[in-house]
Amino acid sequence: MNSENFSISEKIVSSSYIRQGAQARRGHEQLIRLLLEQGKCPEDGWSESTIELFLNELAVMDSNNFLGNCGVGEREGRVASGLVARRHYRLIHGIGRSGDIAAIQPKAAGSSLLNKLTNSVVLDILKVAGVRTVSSCFVVPMATGMSLTLCFLTLRHKRPKAKYIIWPRIDQKSCFKSMITAGFEPVVVENLLEGDELRTDLQTIESKIQELGAENILCIHSTTSCFAPRVPDRLEELAVMCAKYNIPHIVNNAYGVQSSKCMHLIQQGARVGRIDAFVQSLDKNFMVPVGGAIIAGFDDSFIQDISRMYPGRASASPSLDVLITLLTLGANGYRKLLKQRKVFSTCSTTFQRFAVQEMYTNLAEELKKLAETHGERLLETSHNPISLAMSLCSLEKQNDRAVTQLGSMLFTRQVSGARVVPRGTEQTVSGYTFKGFMSHANDYPCPYLNAASAIGITKEDVTLCIKRLDKCLKTFKKEKCDQSSTLETSLTGNEGDPCE
Amino acid sequence: MNSENFSISEKIVSSSYIRQGAQARRGHEQLIRLLLEQGKCPEDGWSESTIELFLNELAVMDSNNFLGNCGVGEREGRVASGLVARRHYRLIHGIGRSGDIAAIQPKAAGSSLLNKLTNSVVLDILKVAGVRTVSSCFVVPMATGMSLTLCFLTLRHKRPKAKYIIWPRIDQKSCFKSMITAGFEPVVVENLLEGDELRTDLQTIESKIQELGAENILCIHSTTSCFAPRVPDRLEELAVMCAKYNIPHIVNNAYGVQSSKCMHLIQQGARVGRIDAFVQSLDKNFMVPVGGAIIAGFDDSFIQDISRMYPGRASASPSLDVLITLLTLGANGYRKLLKQRKVFSTCSTTFQRFAVQEMYTNLAEELKKLAETHGERLLETSHNPISLAMSLCSLEKQNDRAVTQLGSMLFTRQVSGARVVPRGTEQTVSGYTFKGFMSHANDYPCPYLNAASAIGITKEDVTLCIKRLDKCLKTFKKEKCDQSSTLETSLTGNEGDPCE
Amino acid sequence: MNSENFSISEKIVSSSYIRQGAQARRGHEQLIRLLLEQGKCPEDGWSESTIELFLNELAVMDSNNFLGNCGVGEREGRVASGLVARRHYRLIHGIGRSGDIAAIQPKAAGSSLLNKLTNSVVLDILKVAGVRTVSSCFVVPMATGMSLTLCFLTLRHKRPKAKYIIWPRIDQKSCFKSMITAGFEPVVVENLLEGDELRTDLQTIESKIQELGAENILCIHSTTSCFAPRVPDRLEELAVMCAKYNIPHIVNNAYGVQSSKCMHLIQQGARVGRIDAFVQSLDKNFMVPVGGAIIAGFDDSFIQDISRMYPGRASASPSLDVLITLLTLGANGYRKLLKQRKVFSTCSTTFQRFAVQEMYTNLAEELKKLAETHGERLLETSHNPISLAMSLCSLEKQNDRAVTQLGSMLFTRQVSGARVVPRGTEQTVSGYTFKGFMSHANDYPCPYLNAASAIGITKEDVTLCIKRLDKCLKTFKKEKCDQSSTLETSLTGNEGDPCE
Amino acid sequence: MNSENFSISEKIVSSSYIRQGAQARRGHEQLIRLLLEQGKCPEDGWSESTIELFLNELAVMDSNNFLGNCGVGEREGRVASGLVARRHYRLIHGIGRSGDIAAIQPKAAGSSLLNKLTNSVVLDILKVAGVRTVSSCFVVPMATGMSLTLCFLTLRHKRPKAKYIIWPRIDQKSCFKSMITAGFEPVVVENLLEGDELRTDLQTIESKIQELGAENILCIHSTTSCFAPRVPDRLEELAVMCAKYNIPHIVNNAYGVQSSKCMHLIQQGARVGRIDAFVQSLDKNFMVPVGGAIIAGFDDSFIQDISRMYPGRASASPSLDVLITLLTLGANGYRKLLKQRKVFSTCSTTFQRFAVQEMYTNLAEELKKLAETHGERLLETSHNPISLAMSLCSLEKQNDRAVTQLGSMLFTRQVSGARVVPRGTEQTVSGYTFKGFMSHANDYPCPYLNAASAIGITKEDVTLCIKRLDKCLKTFKKEKCDQSSTLETSLTGNEGDPCE
Repeated sequence: MNSENFSISEKIVSSSYIRQGAQARRGHEQLIRLLLEQGKCPEDGWSESTIELFLNELAVMDSNNFLGNCGVGEREGRVASGLVARRHYRLIHGIGRSGDIAAIQPKAAGSSLLNKLTNSVVLDILKVAGVRTVSSCFVVPMATGMSLTLCFLTLRHKRPKAKYIIWPRIDQKSCFKSMITAGFEPVVVENLLEGDELRTDLQTIESKIQELGAENILCIHSTTSCFAPRVPDRLEELAVMCAKYNIPHIVNNAYGVQSSKCMHLIQQGARVGRIDAFVQSLDKNFMVPVGGAIIAGFDDSFIQDISRMYPGRASASPSLDVLITLLTLGANGYRKLLKQRKVFSTCSTTFQRFAVQEMYTNLAEELKKLAETHGERLLETSHNPISLAMSLCSLEKQNDRAVTQLGSMLFTRQVSGARVVPRGTEQTVSGYTFKGFMSHANDYPCPYLNAASAIGITKEDVTLCIKRLDKCLKTFKKEKCDQSSTLETSLTGNEGDPCE
Repeated sequence: MNSENFSISEKIVSSSYIRQGAQARRGHEQLIRLLLEQGKCPEDGWSESTIELFLNELAVMDSNNFLGNCGVGEREGRVASGLVARRHYRLIHGIGRSGDIAAIQPKAAGSSLLNKLTNSVVLDILKVAGVRTVSSCFVVPMATGMSLTLCFLTLRHKRPKAKYIIWPRIDQKSCFKSMITAGFEPVVVENLLEGDELRTDLQTIESKIQELGAENILCIHSTTSCFAPRVPDRLEELAVMCAKYNIPHIVNNAYGVQSSKCMHLIQQGARVGRIDAFVQSLDKNFMVPVGGAIIAGFDDSFIQDISRMYPGRASASPSLDVLITLLTLGANGYRKLLKQRKVFSTCSTTFQRFAVQEMYTNLAEELKKLAETHGERLLETSHNPISLAMSLCSLEKQNDRAVTQLGSMLFTRQVSGARVVPRGTEQTVSGYTFKGFMSHANDYPCPYLNAASAIGITKEDVTLCIKRLDKCLKTFKKEKCDQSSTLETSLTGNEGDPCE
Repeated sequence: MNSENFSISEKIVSSSYIRQGAQARRGHEQLIRLLLEQGKCPEDGWSESTIELFLNELAVMDSNNFLGNCGVGEREGRVASGLVARRHYRLIHGIGRSGDIAAIQPKAAGSSLLNKLTNSVVLDILKVAGVRTVSSCFVVPMATGMSLTLCFLTLRHKRPKAKYIIWPRIDQKSCFKSMITAGFEPVVVENLLEGDELRTDLQTIESKIQELGAENILCIHSTTSCFAPRVPDRLEELAVMCAKYNIPHIVNNAYGVQSSKCMHLIQQGARVGRIDAFVQSLDKNFMVPVGGAIIAGFDDSFIQDISRMYPGRASASPSLDVLITLLTLGANGYRKLLKQRKVFSTCSTTFQRFAVQEMYTNLAEELKKLAETHGERLLETSHNPISLAMSLCSLEKQNDRAVTQLGSMLFTRQVSGARVVPRGTEQTVSGYTFKGFMSHANDYPCPYLNAASAIGITKEDVTLCIKRLDKCLKTFKKEKCDQSSTLETSLTGNEGDPCE
Repeated sequence: MNSENFSISEKIVSSSYIRQGAQARRGHEQLIRLLLEQGKCPEDGWSESTIELFLNELAVMDSNNFLGNCGVGEREGRVASGLVARRHYRLIHGIGRSGDIAAIQPKAAGSSLLNKLTNSVVLDILKVAGVRTVSSCFVVPMATGMSLTLCFLTLRHKRPKAKYIIWPRIDQKSCFKSMITAGFEPVVVENLLEGDELRTDLQTIESKIQELGAENILCIHSTTSCFAPRVPDRLEELAVMCAKYNIPHIVNNAYGVQSSKCMHLIQQGARVGRIDAFVQSLDKNFMVPVGGAIIAGFDDSFIQDISRMYPGRASASPSLDVLITLLTLGANGYRKLLKQRKVFSTCSTTFQRFAVQEMYTNLAEELKKLAETHGERLLETSHNPISLAMSLCSLEKQNDRAVTQLGSMLFTRQVSGARVVPRGTEQTVSGYTFKGFMSHANDYPCPYLNAASAIGITKEDVTLCIKRLDKCLKTFKKEKCDQSSTLETSLTGNEGDPCE
């Protein structure tokens, strides 16, 4: 209420109480002021009460909520269903305008503020997460793959002759398809096997550049976060190479924001060489629903070029989700999540289970123990900060189909995200055939199982997963694998695609 | 509750009451059964109670809501904020998989059902709206422009040599940019002035085809819904031409679902010639928030190709919105909206104001009367079923800037969507310069003002708009235009872009 | 947002848009200002957006929502469940203080405002509904019966010698029990049969007063709304009698606010005689959930005495419900409901069905027609403005149990509220035995069925009820009453108690 | 969804996924089954998802949500406002019937189940909290005071001659008024000063019984939870005395459920003597909004008599709140709250602050330290398990008004619940004058300040309170008490009433 209404209220309820109420209101306003002034994620999270107050204030500024508005356009933010209006806090106009997804809408000052603030808060949190010199970013309501496509389409206008994208192999369909969809020809560079790890083959990449001619190459498309035993690409060296040959460099940082290692690689790459843009998933890094990504970079004008390449308005839903989430967590809350990847859960769980050690270490230790019990081993992939892999050699020996059967068994036992990778799978994606698909290599030495310690994982997740996995492996020993027949092999095969 | 729980309840509460409760539950289940079986929009709208019951049921089927799930993947549908979880009904996994936005997710049976059903219900409603032979469609969480881009990118793989898109001019930035973003060169074909109307110049288009060579043309990109005095393209003739020359045909049907004329044009085009896909906005046709579109067509395999071209998962938010809305309205409800474009508002307004006549007719009559009072006239654009235009000749004579000032005045008076189009505006979009921008023609004979009778418009909107417009025009007569100085001309200029 | 925050926003989003947003906010503030200043129900209903904004503002003023509060009391408004906090809009402190349910709470300025405003708005709406000279009222979170008890307990302190309450018989348990619970002895006065109607026996009442002695009588407890063929008491004459003998007069106006006749009776009674308080149900008159009542009267100090008699704080939930409802409807909306008792439904039904005639008349006509078809008649009870009764003579003749069987059949066919009244039922309530229970008379000439046209009834309700009733009656004619055995007679017996 | 709908879904989405979804649903059903079968608070809390699913299921069983219902009664559960319907989960019919607040409603099987289950779960939790032999209880939507009144009114029917209630003095208005409202004469028995504590004067009570005659005494009305230095009454001895003289015994256990000591006293009292009913607040013990109480006892038939004394239906809102809360917490969660009275907060606070020590001990230690610093002392009141008192002797010496000024200062500094008790306050409540009001004694030796460690208190509450209190006391030392003039003394006086 404004000061006039507070004054009138003093005639109804004792003025000292009303004045205290008005002062309490200023407490919320003060938090909003800081957000507007600084454009940063608040250090401490806001209460739901402040967040909803703020969102209501934004909504009131949009023309579809004007009490005296009359609309005779073709888009007036009318909503037929009350359920729908409410779930969007009556913010209906989306974000952006025809010319630019980051542009301001005359009809929707509130939605425009939401858009600007979200991008600003997200930029701040990317810095908090380790890319200190990032200068510009925007949230786009498309998943990582389509966002990469948008980057490639933007580059096309700058490099009209270019036909190729150099891509150190990573077996994820959507990042491969992002190049195909944009109309380019991926040049797949196989990885080198170093110990158990699959690492970027810099030499082959450089010779490819020389072979194809730098001007014919749209960009190098590298990857940070990935499933072990592949590890993040050698970003520094690639960035230096891009600078040397004057080739753009786009980084797929899908779920790398949660890892200080991945973020460090990007920061270093940008410092010593060239990174034009890095793209990350909203849902995988910020615990929001699927459907958004952040496109970020170090050159404002290039990032703006990308945002101007998106034709038309866009859904505000992913922006709203990430803004609510970051205001709820605060920078401190997000930092804690990053530091500990500790137990964190939604309000549905009343008593939050707190982890005393880092979940990644915990998962690694537990998997290692389990592997040894079953005559397997935890692959040594220390460059991969999130994903782990446990060999499944003896299982493979026992039975050709046992590896895929294990996947099915885990699925039916509600172990989600545990991905089994058999050897010898061949798959054709958009006309390109990958040998040893899912393993990032034509012929990886052994089959294995992946598990990841991703943001939000809990001690209970690890404990249950290890317990069920142990049970499944014991079942194989007894050669009673009846359950496995209920699910098709192909199911697990698909499940395994980490970028799916 | 299942039958077991109903039985136990009979020990607590009189069994005859419980049995009646169980029977009542079957009533809701029956509605859900029909939806699942037929995949059609129910004739009568569902109650909020049934809708929420259904959405809760879907959510329960997704792994992030499994009570015994343990997750060790990199994406587990964890949500940090309770506000966010609730506003998505705990449906977190989005839609689609890496390979296909229409694909099923193993981790999310409920979200997958949601996705399939939405596409199926939307297909049904497109038939209801007039394109009876449409065979396939899907909802995509991108606005119309980006969806058109996706269509063009898909065609590229089928026509690798093609560089051009033939495009009868329509002054909307996002549809122009959709071609640029996809990397093609638009061939802009000016419209013919027939009476007051701007209509497709078929002859020029055909000579362009012959000049450039059919195989070099990606497609013809035509438009239905548009601002008067431009009228929907001659879709039948264009479709016949596309068939003759074996050129794909993509139709921008932005807000045309609400118009039986536009839908009829598409139906006829497909009957006598070739239409590969038609794209429409969710928000403009279904009264949902901005951010989604429907890509539809007559050939299942081509539509599926497009859906497979989207790399990665996508937001379920637009699908959820349109499904809720269509279940709330029912086919009957939507039909009524189409028939009457009558007063319809969200629950916030308790008493709905019912229109006794079609809003379009009402708006036309009122505008006509007003125009005559002020020495102007309603342009004769009978082929345009939604948008109307009133000349502003005498205003222009009075004062060079008066036309744009009128736009500003209407904006500050909360008349949203009334778009003024001065003459002589020149604008460069992505390197292409448009003379007479906003008027769809290099040199339209007069400046004018647009108003549209779009879905959800109310009698009150029309009355208020006419009243305020009248007041503004009178102000000009008195030559007291002080207020207009508060807003920049450019503002109204941008506001005028209907596809913004 | 306050003006400072709007100013800062102008640096982020174009200032003309922000200023328009700020102006729009003032629109909502203006509505709130009027409410605070006048304390009246707004003429036009508010949007959900304004209502939620207002409730959020109130919540912010309560200490449990202070950002810097520390609490060391035994009641601090802490809430364990987020679901609970949200459903109360974070208004946790309830209403009133130990001394007075209408008192202001230091810890909860917002809840206190809510309480004061609700009582003020409700007072206004009682005037709108016809009791123009009502001077004071308050909402109490107890149903009608317990509220009557509170009135009687308050009177006890004023009339310490009084033991009796004179009560023209009406067969509703809770109003009878309200006297028992308060510790008084009801003096039940049988009604006179005039035509089909049961009317107040004034002469017997007066002789009872003389017999018992006015000073031994706590009050006369009369009734307006009731099931036909009983009709509202002769309030004017009773009020005059109360004035004459100096006896308090409490009126049970359970669902009479919706009837201008009932309200007129109260207004007249107060004008010509004495009415100390009249009590009405919130849920039955205002379409809110069960659990609240309004205690109103013409003497501020007596009404305040009652409010001070309630020991301790109380739930704000009924106040919140009725305030939201009246702000949503507006006085105009409520007036329309009163005038037409027309189709009105919650948001779940998208298309509201509008009645063209008064529902009461419609129901009466339909029942009459039906009655004649089946050899029965609609009882003539024109003094009862809400309830109707149709004789069931031929049914009774056919079969002793047929009347109660009809009740069961209607129940299983989801006709709710249709109440069958067989003859000869005897029931003992709190030690007092009623002959002919449910019929308000020891020996009413015929059994009958009641149906009421209460607020919110729809044309569809009437149509379906008549149709199903017709079907049931036809079944009896065919003497195939198998279904009736599934439900016990007693069930319908209980169902029939209108005050249950 | 029922099994039929799951089957149909298998045609749309892969059957293995649907089957897993169906299995997941059974997980929720299983939790519901246990609740229905056992009627106990689940050990582990439910997720919001299960709770909402369950509430939706209940709502579906109520006739107002039947899809085919037609209503012609005077109460049909119609709701005018969607906001209102939703906040009650569409459970509109309240609880109880005219005859009994615990009775089942034919029209509302779901609400009836809700009512029965709530009472059953609450009974279980009373046992968990320490009264193991409690046999019957019910939730009533009235605060503690009015609930006590209901108990007294019920007893009246059993002891028609009784006029007096014997009441060991406790300075809380509402419990005093509960007797006045019921129409009885309180016999106030002053407490004995033992050390710092005020304790029950058993001897005086016994002589009062003998003086007045047992048959003239309605009951003894004792108290457990109270503000220090008063301590819980000697319940065992009182219970024995009640048994000896055959006098009913009603215990005001306002916020005693949270204290094992208070609950133990009740358990012991019932074991060795007579306790007819004990009444406790919902909001003070279960962190729900104000407005409900639990009436419990050891004799089913007496508790049922009380429930039958409530005339008419009642609000389900408090029942719904406490059921949601207990399902959210689970018995384990509630036990933890009891054990630690540790930091626990709503979802609005993302990171919950965990206390490492019992809050009561913490508060006591901190207060003690602070008292010593300022030349005061923590009163020794070890029999009071919740409330603490710190003397304010030197403050009183300094300045007559200083004690009340301190109260005002704390209020304006957002320290809520800290209650200052000056000496010599006299107050008349319902005609009875209390000397030394607020201190439970005519002439307590010193003024003091109360602070309580009540359920939900956090470490931060304690720290902030001590810090601000310290600052205020220092201000007095500097004799700069300017701020105190802004608030009236009387304000703090009222604030101090713990039962307010």
